[in-house]
Parts: sequence; C-alpha cells; structure tokens
Amino acid sequence: VTASVSSAALTRAELEHAAPRTVRMAVREGRWTTNTKRLALGFHQANVTILPKHLAFDFMRFCQRNPRALPILDVTDPGDPVPRIAAPDADIRVDIPSYCIYRDGKLVDRVRDLRDQWRSDHVAFLTGCNLSIDQVLLDAGIPFPHLVREDAFPAQYRSTLMCRPAGVFHSPVVVSYRPVPELLLLRVIELTSRFPLSHGAPIHVGDPVRIGIPDLAKVDWGRAPDEEPGTIPAFWACGITAQSAATTVGICEMITHAPGHMFVTDLPVSDRTLG
Amino acid sequence: VTASVSSAALTRAELEHAAPRTVRMAVREGRWTTNTKRLALGFHQANVTILPKHLAFDFMRFCQRNPRALPILDVTDPGDPVPRIAAPDADIRVDIPSYCIYRDGKLVDRVRDLRDQWRSDHVAFLTGCNLSIDQVLLDAGIPFPHLVREDAFPAQYRSTLMCRPAGVFHSPVVVSYRPVPELLLLRVIELTSRFPLSHGAPIHVGDPVRIGIPDLAKVDWGRAPDEEPGTIPAFWACGITAQSAATTVGICEMITHAPGHMFVTDLPVSDRTLG
Repeated sequence: VTASVSSAALTRAELEHAAPRTVRMAVREGRWTTNTKRLALGFHQANVTILPKHLAFDFMRFCQRNPRALPILDVTDPGDPVPRIAAPDADIRVDIPSYCIYRDGKLVDRVRDLRDQWRSDHVAFLTGCNLSIDQVLLDAGIPFPHLVREDAFPAQYRSTLMCRPAGVFHSPVVVSYRPVPELLLLRVIELTSRFPLSHGAPIHVGDPVRIGIPDLAKVDWGRAPDEEPGTIPAFWACGITAQSAATTVGICEMITHAPGHMFVTDLPVSDRTLG
Repeated sequence: VTASVSSAALTRAELEHAAPRTVRMAVREGRWTTNTKRLALGFHQANVTILPKHLAFDFMRFCQRNPRALPILDVTDPGDPVPRIAAPDADIRVDIPSYCIYRDGKLVDRVRDLRDQWRSDHVAFLTGCNLSIDQVLLDAGIPFPHLVREDAFPAQYRSTLMCRPAGVFHSPVVVSYRPVPELLLLRVIELTSRFPLSHGAPIHVGDPVRIGIPDLAKVDWGRAPDEEPGTIPAFWACGITAQSAATTVGICEMITHAPGHMFVTDLPVSDRTLG
C-alpha cells in the first residue's frame, strides 16, 4: 500500500462535525487515510461488501435474515459504483480509506483505491455500523473507550453464535465489544435498541465465555481492550460478519472496506427507518 | 375457481383472535376462502410476490429501495415453499386463500392452490401489509370503515408518485385509502408511523388529486369507499405496488396473493423490527 497522503492531511477533530461529503472528499483526495470513528457524527457509517452479481441475491438474503449483524442501508445496481440511496454523489471505489480484497476466502490484498478492480458485474452492499451512533452515546455521556481515547478502537471477535444461512453464505456472528460501566448498562441497552440500522441492542451482556470468547485480549479484529474495572462486557453483532462469511465459505471474491475504515453516508442516524 | 369450501367453514369472529397457524390451516383446508382482514389480530399479514429466480435480485433491490410500499419480512430460498423466518411450518403454495397469476404483465388466472404451478426456481417475497396493524387501530378506537363494517374493505389506487426503479422493475406507487375523522388525524399519523414494516405513516393526506386520483369512486383494487363526511382522505403506500410493477413492466411471470387475501405470518406486530 502506497500512502498517497497529500500535504493537507486533516485531523479527526476537523472532520468530527463535517458533512459526510466533506469526509468522503477528504478520503478521495488522500487527506484522510485511517479509521473513521467520530467522523461526520450523526450520519450513518456503512460496512461495504462488494460481490460478483452471481452471489448477490444469496448475500442479500443473508443480510435480510441476519439484520442484527447486516442491516441493509443500500444495495447498488450491478456495475454502478454509486450508492444512490445512501450517498448519490459518492463513488464506492474511491471514497473509503482502505479496502480488503478476499479471494477464495483469503485476504490477499489491502488497497486504497478500487478503480482497477471494479467490474460491470460488481454489486456493493452497504450495511449499518455501530460507529454511526457515537453522537447518540456522546450526547448521553456514555464513556466508551473508543470515544474518549484517541488510540482506542472497539475490538471484534468471532463468536459461537451462528448466523441464519442463505444460499452459499453461512458464518459465525462476529461481535464488537464495549465495556459498559455497571450503572450505565440499562441506559446503553435502551439507547442502542432504538437504532436497529446500527446493530440495535447488544446480543450478549456478561461473561464472554458464554459466546465463545475465552480471552478478551485475543482479538480477531480491532485493538485489544484495556482492562476496565467496574464495567460489564457488552457485545453487539458486527458487520465484519460478512468478511467472516467470506473466509468461512471460501467465497471466490469479496471486496470490503478495511475494518474500522467505513464508508460515510448521507443518511442521518436520527431518521430511524429508511424510505 | 372452484370453491372447495368444506362443510366446516368458519366465521371471521372465530378467527379474529386465532393463532396465525390456525388461520393458515383453515385456509389450507378450504374453511377460509375470502379476505383476511381482522384475522389473527396482532400478527403480520404479508403480501406475497413469487418470481423466477432470474428476476429475484432485481425485485429484492426494488423492495429495499421502496420500503414504504414493499417492506421486506422474509424472502425464501429458490424452490423452497417455506418462509422460514415468517412462518417456519407454513407452505406458501397452499396457505393463501386466493392467488393471482400474471404472465407478460397480464392477470391470466386466479387459483386457490399453487402446487401445480410451483417450480424449483421460484422465490417468494413476503412484504408488510396495513391490515397487520388493525389491532393497534382497534385498541386506539380508530373507526376505519373496514374495521367497523363487515362489507367494507380499503380501496387501492395507482397514484402518480413513482417508485425508485431497480433493474427491470419500475412502477407508480399504489396507495391504499382510509378516511380519517379530522380530530383523529394526528393520532393516526403518530400510530401508523411506529410500524414501518406495515407501511408506516401515510404518504399523502388531503386532496387525492395531488397524487393523481381524480375520483375516489373509481378504485383500481378493493371496494369503492362510501362518502364519509367530516373525514380527511389519507393514503398509505401499498404492497399491490408489486402487481402494478408486473403490469407496468410486462414481467414474464409473477404470482401473487389476491389483493386482500393475505398470508398470515407468525411475526408479532409488537416486535417492531426483524431479527
């Protein structure tokens, strides 16, 4: 990966309250190259999963049947790089800071631009992301580490919970972890349950072993969490489940955003339903 | 259509508070053959659209982009007649009182059983329906004609509002009409907006001419409404939009429920989101 950062790189603070389009332009111009947490607060950030058309209907049913992990925000027409509902002036090939390319279920490359990869049979799925509700959590004073410390980022784990299969797709549910201060647990469940397009309520609270995570330090994606005394572990279904499906099944080709490097949409989080 | 009503035909009152499975069995056994309004109150009733697999991904995007008209409840695997999320012990080929068969965009037959029609490439889409929230409206004392008079049924019209297209599918939005007593209008909007899987809030309130309906007496589906002094016309997006798309586009094959003759699912309306 060649870092083509222009001289005018931006800070996270500068993009926190920026319009989604401003963030996308900063990404496109190489002025933002890292994860998108706290950017364009109040707008949906999306997981992106690009598949050849012959797998698209199976994957769309997989999303529909597993809406906690893969709540659909938008699906492009084959060959169209524009997510016309979620961001009609965007280009999915250049507006994400970093992409992962999976072939036959293996991560084979990370790239910063998809223009050389894009084909007329490619379909892009945009699905919801927890980072979308950071503004809601900030407003409510929920001190999640990734919100209060620049170097923190939620950790993700492959759980032993299983997705409902669809066509060729099956996978464990990937979960993202946040430590919740005991006295805030009910509030966090209540708040997050209101946002089903951003994974909704936790799918597990309490002992991580119950969902097949013996050691929180051994993350599958993201950064290993610090110990947080006085907190209860809470887990939300996570969009990385798509990438887990690629590796579980050995999908011939899947291109995704790199974990944490999301596509910033124009969809306001405050509008709880689509359409 | 041969009416194969068994001797033990049931009354609407007997099935109002029945379990969804009981209603489906009554349909399957020919003991319920007419529209499903007020049956299994509190559970989602679904529009059903059956298409050959080669049209399924286009249609699923059409639903996704037009969630007011076509909110997806479940999509079956090709060839599988069981809607495994919405009603895992049901059979979509025999559990609907009446089916419409469209070929090349024309309604060519109405049948009571799909076992002779069903193929291994058929995919069934279940989408939400206004009738699903009749219990909510009854509890709130909203006196819609179809709820208080046995012979009344909502009227539907092809509007001049347009769906977002997807692949081969495009269509005007079909709307269903209800006359709302003036003093209840805000309450009705508030109540219905809470149920996006059942078409949510009205998409138009007031003069029908504004959405291309010059004469409420000339219905496209359902029954012509009586004049209702002191009411305001309200229109909701309607699942018949799928059938309108079949005729607008000239779709080679589409099989649907007959309007008003819905598939009764096991999904409780009180659970506002899927998954």
